Amino acid sequence: TLRELVARIYPPDLADIIERLDDEDQQRVFSLLELSQAADVLDEASIDTARELIGQMPVEQAADILEELDSDDAAAILTEDVPERQNELLAAMAPEEAADVRELLRYPPQSAGRLLNDRFVALRESDTVADAMERLRNIVHDAAVIVYLYVLDQHDRLIGTVSLRRLLVDSPNRPIIELMRPSPLAVQPETDQEEVARMVARYDLAALPVVDGEGRMLGVVTVDDVMDVLLEEGTEDVLKFGAVAQGQADETYFTTPIVASVRRRIVWLLFLFVAGSITANVLRLFETELEQVVALSFFIPLLIGTGGNTGAQTVSTLIRAMALNEVRLRDVWRVLVRELLVGIILGVLLAIIAFGRAFLEVPMASLAITVALSVMAICIWANIIGAMVPMAARRVGIDPALISAPLITTLVDASGLAIYLLIAKLLLGL
Amino acid sequence: TLRELVARIYPPDLADIIERLDDEDQQRVFSLLELSQAADVLDEASIDTARELIGQMPVEQAADILEELDSDDAAAILTEDVPERQNELLAAMAPEEAADVRELLRYPPQSAGRLLNDRFVALRESDTVADAMERLRNIVHDAAVIVYLYVLDQHDRLIGTVSLRRLLVDSPNRPIIELMRPSPLAVQPETDQEEVARMVARYDLAALPVVDGEGRMLGVVTVDDVMDVLLEEGTEDVLKFGAVAQGQADETYFTTPIVASVRRRIVWLLFLFVAGSITANVLRLFETELEQVVALSFFIPLLIGTGGNTGAQTVSTLIRAMALNEVRLRDVWRVLVRELLVGIILGVLLAIIAFGRAFLEVPMASLAITVALSVMAICIWANIIGAMVPMAARRVGIDPALISAPLITTLVDASGLAIYLLIAKLLLGL
Ligand SMILES: [Mg+2]
Ligand SMILES: [Mg+2]
Ligand SMILES: [Mg+2]
Ligand SMILES: [Mg+2]
Ligand SMILES: [Mg+2]
Ligand SMILES: [Mg+2]
Ligand SMILES: [Mg+2]
Ligand SMILES: [Mg+2]
Ligand SMILES: [Mg+2]
Ligand SMILES: [Mg+2]
Ligand SMILES: [Mg+2]
Ligand SMILES: [Mg+2]
Ligand SMILES: [Mg+2]
Repeated sequence: TLRELVARIYPPDLADIIERLDDEDQQRVFSLLELSQAADVLDEASIDTARELIGQMPVEQAADILEELDSDDAAAILTEDVPERQNELLAAMAPEEAADVRELLRYPPQSAGRLLNDRFVALRESDTVADAMERLRNIVHDAAVIVYLYVLDQHDRLIGTVSLRRLLVDSPNRPIIELMRPSPLAVQPETDQEEVARMVARYDLAALPVVDGEGRMLGVVTVDDVMDVLLEEGTEDVLKFGAVAQGQADETYFTTPIVASVRRRIVWLLFLFVAGSITANVLRLFETELEQVVALSFFIPLLIGTGGNTGAQTVSTLIRAMALNEVRLRDVWRVLVRELLVGIILGVLLAIIAFGRAFLEVPMASLAITVALSVMAICIWANIIGAMVPMAARRVGIDPALISAPLITTLVDASGLAIYLLIAKLLLGL
Repeated sequence: TLRELVARIYPPDLADIIERLDDEDQQRVFSLLELSQAADVLDEASIDTARELIGQMPVEQAADILEELDSDDAAAILTEDVPERQNELLAAMAPEEAADVRELLRYPPQSAGRLLNDRFVALRESDTVADAMERLRNIVHDAAVIVYLYVLDQHDRLIGTVSLRRLLVDSPNRPIIELMRPSPLAVQPETDQEEVARMVARYDLAALPVVDGEGRMLGVVTVDDVMDVLLEEGTEDVLKFGAVAQGQADETYFTTPIVASVRRRIVWLLFLFVAGSITANVLRLFETELEQVVALSFFIPLLIGTGGNTGAQTVSTLIRAMALNEVRLRDVWRVLVRELLVGIILGVLLAIIAFGRAFLEVPMASLAITVALSVMAICIWANIIGAMVPMAARRVGIDPALISAPLITTLVDASGLAIYLLIAKLLLGL
């Protein structure tokens, strides 16, 4: 039957199929789905499609679907996809499920609490292996994680974990306390999702327990949600590298208010503008030279542009190398030597092209030589700046990922100009 | 005892502790570890530490440790940490383990094949639930994944998966063929690790089977390795945004030959240099104006620098939004309107500061107004360029992540200059 056929399709694929239909078919197909399938589709759909699907159905039906979802996924839909209908939809949901979702929403966006799943297998200290297996069998169809079981004391405090691998081979009468790993890794609900993700990746976990201030177990963050966090955080680094300050976690491109977008960018832009305006001072210092040879100014954008490009390349290389722990603070001299070498080679190659290009534009050998030598010097200089600034940042405890391409470009602009005009003064005898 | 104490420490923490010791202590502590612990530490250690540890021991001992590791982890150490000793160490390893590693090394770097783990639970079509549970129990201590079991036909072709959740509750006599999910998701060993990671994240898998051209099961890629891939690929995008071409996968910062580093950067640098040299033409077009008012040139770096910064912000915002599917191609008009608005607000704010800054440098109202208006116009223009170029890239099938900050900066440089000098010509009556 069609039902069985649809049940065979993986939820993300089903969501994709539905997204590609036009509005009318979308609604028709969606209404044919069973509740759990509809919930899966809503969870996997893009923001736009989820908004449309929810918009097209009666609020009661939307609430039914949200009840079917894990609390963390329902919370995500209510904050990211239909934030303006959050209260209305929560009010229409069954009180118990709505309360679960409201509890998650109390935690800060992008925190462990927002990813909480309370469907874990809880054991007591007095349980045997047989008890544990029975408890597992009872809830296995609904559990978020089965490879670990969690041992709680009488106050529901997490005291240890038991691995299913052990349970499968140990004798039924054995007390689980004997196979328990005590003082397990855990985080608080306020912990940033990025730290959660790094822990799960570092310790190769299938799930990480979340405990409150008293050590009581609230739930687990599962590895599938951690993968989504890693995908999200990766793109966040590109944003930082583009000098955009971090925004509210649950805002998306279109749901971010314009004013917030401006605020996140203007701080950096203003700072860079003020820092960059030192270039005007540098140029005024060389006013006479620029008056004597106006052609000097022709190559200003090209030279400092190339310096900025070189610096951006180096800083991105270092940010990656430091993030992957390939480069550490103590490697500073090795990095310096290496980037000096790379800078020299790049500089020489570009200088050759620059000489030709400059001579073509203004047939004046001394000027072309000035431009060529400047490109070389600026390249080497930008390479050193691009390597040292992120290392200096880490040295003083600033995340190197905060060093953006615009910051390096701006740093290289003023110093690059000074290099160029000093070389010009020397070579052109101004 | 000390042994038991050390066994309690998680491998990545143990590796960290050992890294922080000086060379002598490092060797002493390392030699106290059991073989499996030593293997864990070597696997988790940074490249430098792994090199040192391997360098300090007899080749036979290093080979013993490598034999202890999963083939994929041993392969990673041999290619990333001690590439120059790869053959020597492989020759010293037990023939069977060495052959396993050599097989992985035949696959391209950053492919599924390099992450292969062959310790999965294989079932036959004729097995019952009881058979499956027995097979699982026999190898559970050593299996890379236990939540899925894999059904192979008589030619070892993968025909389906069985979930441990089902096995735990189904009756022992039931043929597993009845609970099997047929035609499971799988990849070939040549598949790029990034695609593997996206599939595992998309379908929330604990492991993804790898099959050869005939559909024979080679092994699985497990989710813990996928998380490392995601962390790596995230930083790769920063590299792309910095206009550095992608390198060999198993090269790290220090193991990349200098010539390779240069090659990966010079292509972009040269292209941007040639494209950027159009700025010289633009400026020569306005030679008379620049001769008349030399002060005009003072603000060139600041204006185009600000344009580049604005453009870099916008393009990073769009790259993220497109990567997270918040923005799609059909949203192009909404994006345009939004970035136009943001550009206008940013432009007006910067224009106010720019007027003051310019007047302070050169007390000439008409010039200050020229600079202010230019900042505004360039901001708006850069915002539109920064939004449209990544969307245009996707439209023609180019990965938007390839649009780098330097590319946008270079695009904005020439056009920004033209805007500035046209406004100057108009306002200053040149
Ligand atoms: Mg969603
Ligand atoms: Mg609940
Ligand atoms: Mg974050
Ligand atoms: Mg790991
Ligand atoms: Mg690992
Ligand atoms: Mg979840
Ligand atoms: Mg390693
Ligand atoms: Mg093997
Ligand atoms: Mg890749
Ligand atoms: Mg997923
Ligand atoms: Mg999911
Ligand atoms: Mg592995
Ligand atoms: Mg990528």
